[in-house]
Amino acid sequence: MRTLPDLSRITCPAPLARYATVQLAHGGGGRLSQQLIDELFVQAFGNPILEPLHDGAVLNAGGQRLAFSTDSFVIQPLFFPGGNIGSLAVHGTVNDIAMCGATPLWLSAGYIIEEGFGMKELCAVVEAMREAAAQAGVQIVTGDTKVVDRGKGDGIYINTAGVGLVREGIRIGADRIEAGDAILVNGPIAEHGIAIMSVREGLEFETNIESDSAALGGLVAAMLDAGGEDVHMLRDPTRGGVASALDEIATTARLGLRLQEAKVPVREAVRGACEILGFDPLYVANEGKCVAVVARRAAERILAAMRAHERGTEAALIGEVTSDHPGRVVLRSQVGADRIVERMSGEQLPRIC
Amino acid sequence: MRTLPDLSRITCPAPLARYATVQLAHGGGGRLSQQLIDELFVQAFGNPILEPLHDGAVLNAGGQRLAFSTDSFVIQPLFFPGGNIGSLAVHGTVNDIAMCGATPLWLSAGYIIEEGFGMKELCAVVEAMREAAAQAGVQIVTGDTKVVDRGKGDGIYINTAGVGLVREGIRIGADRIEAGDAILVNGPIAEHGIAIMSVREGLEFETNIESDSAALGGLVAAMLDAGGEDVHMLRDPTRGGVASALDEIATTARLGLRLQEAKVPVREAVRGACEILGFDPLYVANEGKCVAVVARRAAERILAAMRAHERGTEAALIGEVTSDHPGRVVLRSQVGADRIVERMSGEQLPRIC
Repeated sequence: MRTLPDLSRITCPAPLARYATVQLAHGGGGRLSQQLIDELFVQAFGNPILEPLHDGAVLNAGGQRLAFSTDSFVIQPLFFPGGNIGSLAVHGTVNDIAMCGATPLWLSAGYIIEEGFGMKELCAVVEAMREAAAQAGVQIVTGDTKVVDRGKGDGIYINTAGVGLVREGIRIGADRIEAGDAILVNGPIAEHGIAIMSVREGLEFETNIESDSAALGGLVAAMLDAGGEDVHMLRDPTRGGVASALDEIATTARLGLRLQEAKVPVREAVRGACEILGFDPLYVANEGKCVAVVARRAAERILAAMRAHERGTEAALIGEVTSDHPGRVVLRSQVGADRIVERMSGEQLPRIC
Repeated sequence: MRTLPDLSRITCPAPLARYATVQLAHGGGGRLSQQLIDELFVQAFGNPILEPLHDGAVLNAGGQRLAFSTDSFVIQPLFFPGGNIGSLAVHGTVNDIAMCGATPLWLSAGYIIEEGFGMKELCAVVEAMREAAAQAGVQIVTGDTKVVDRGKGDGIYINTAGVGLVREGIRIGADRIEAGDAILVNGPIAEHGIAIMSVREGLEFETNIESDSAALGGLVAAMLDAGGEDVHMLRDPTRGGVASALDEIATTARLGLRLQEAKVPVREAVRGACEILGFDPLYVANEGKCVAVVARRAAERILAAMRAHERGTEAALIGEVTSDHPGRVVLRSQVGADRIVERMSGEQLPRIC
């Protein structure tokens, strides 16, 4: 009499059916994540808005273009050098909206709290969200709170969704990229992932490494002021790092990207920590970084605008777009050897964001 | 050297500080939930948009009014008579948008999946979302997937956020309610909560009780077509049921609500199940119900429009707004006795939505 799920009728798409259950790597931002998105979500929900698979969707609301994006934060530890899950949940979604060429304006906040989570910790997380939202110039306008039984969560999970207004005359997209375009980054990479790992593994480095977690709405506004429609593509390289973000761009644009290893900014302390941990900084998560692909003619102007902004003082031109090796990212090492940068296949740092 | 959270600086607002940790009831939709929202979230994020504490926020985007809402779904069991967590996650947010007097258009989907969750179950959940979105006429345009370690989740949690366009000339709000207004509901109540409980407790009733989970965008459109600005307030009585939704309306409107017990539609099977389980149907969750407060002069017209719609064939006028007992909901029983309907204090049915 009971209506139980009849899973015998359900067939999963072939590449997924190889897995009887969901693996950690299906959520890690690497190749298995991409497979899950492509084979399941895009197949089911596929529509012209979803398909560009950008950080956010651009919607036409009665002539007004909106950017809309969501992200769930499941990090461990919840508190880390440079922030906590609350500030991260604001920065992450604000940045996804900014990467659409939009002004971030409104956020939602959905909390899934484990029974027994400290009330003071919750207050600290909410205070960090308040502060981050105020700094980013966004309002948290709607929310939801659920509490799950002890042992069915991990302290607190936060989902934020965001809405912003896309700038007049701006269209950001991988299809706008052309051979010859310059690739920019707004500063030293891999700091968020290493800050999290240092706490998680109880590592002590000579220099304290803080997460770069920050809102980039202001930086992107300065870049668009300087470059206008010469800004072709923006991505925040979070899970999977700069390597995975660029690989996704190369695949979607069907063009090659060439990176100059010597030009990619990495702080000494982070480079050292990566060596100890056995990580390549190109694959380590960032939460206050932006990779931009811009027309060559505007590159210096946009770079100058970035360097004049507090979130881009160490901005650098790190590579260029080529018509060679379409769909591939090639790294030219300091000694002049080329190697292909693959997308991360599994998950280097689980639950980093 | 490590930056650890300095919680000694953190002071929680007094009513919350009584609890060292978060309790299940802080997420149950009753009085403790309300306290957490009022004392923590509204204090921190308070802004003119958040304050009405409606199901969703109404935003002004360059002259275009948007409705924006979010909800996280943490139900157990994940599959229930009448739906699963996927269809519920679409219906819940579509309905929150509709309750703002808006046409639901776009959804985000954020998944938090526990490592080891069945791939077939995931495919079934996503298929249910696809079908529910298609039926509701909304597009899922952006998403996010995280996987957490085994034992740190409960199969799957889903957050949806939604964006819709508020109808021209329509403003829904508790401040629009007037003494004399009629209170309508679109059909028999308490079915979602009882359907979930029947599976959870392994109960067998003579009649199979299915969740009422459904998208109400079309019904609300029909009501607004018929009633226009005479539709003053809309709420979907989910967690905490019709009683909690009406109590919140009475409190916000500072008016009294009088319900006629005999007029509140409850199916016999549900009434019987409530008696066995010791529940009052007024407090049991719904996922396809809408409570409307409308101008008396338009009540019959709106009711007729509801009854002509497939989601409102059993719609009923269940009470009226009074200037007596402001802030209170009073239930007149079948024998003519009055009793005050309190908001649920704890949580009758945890993780019901």
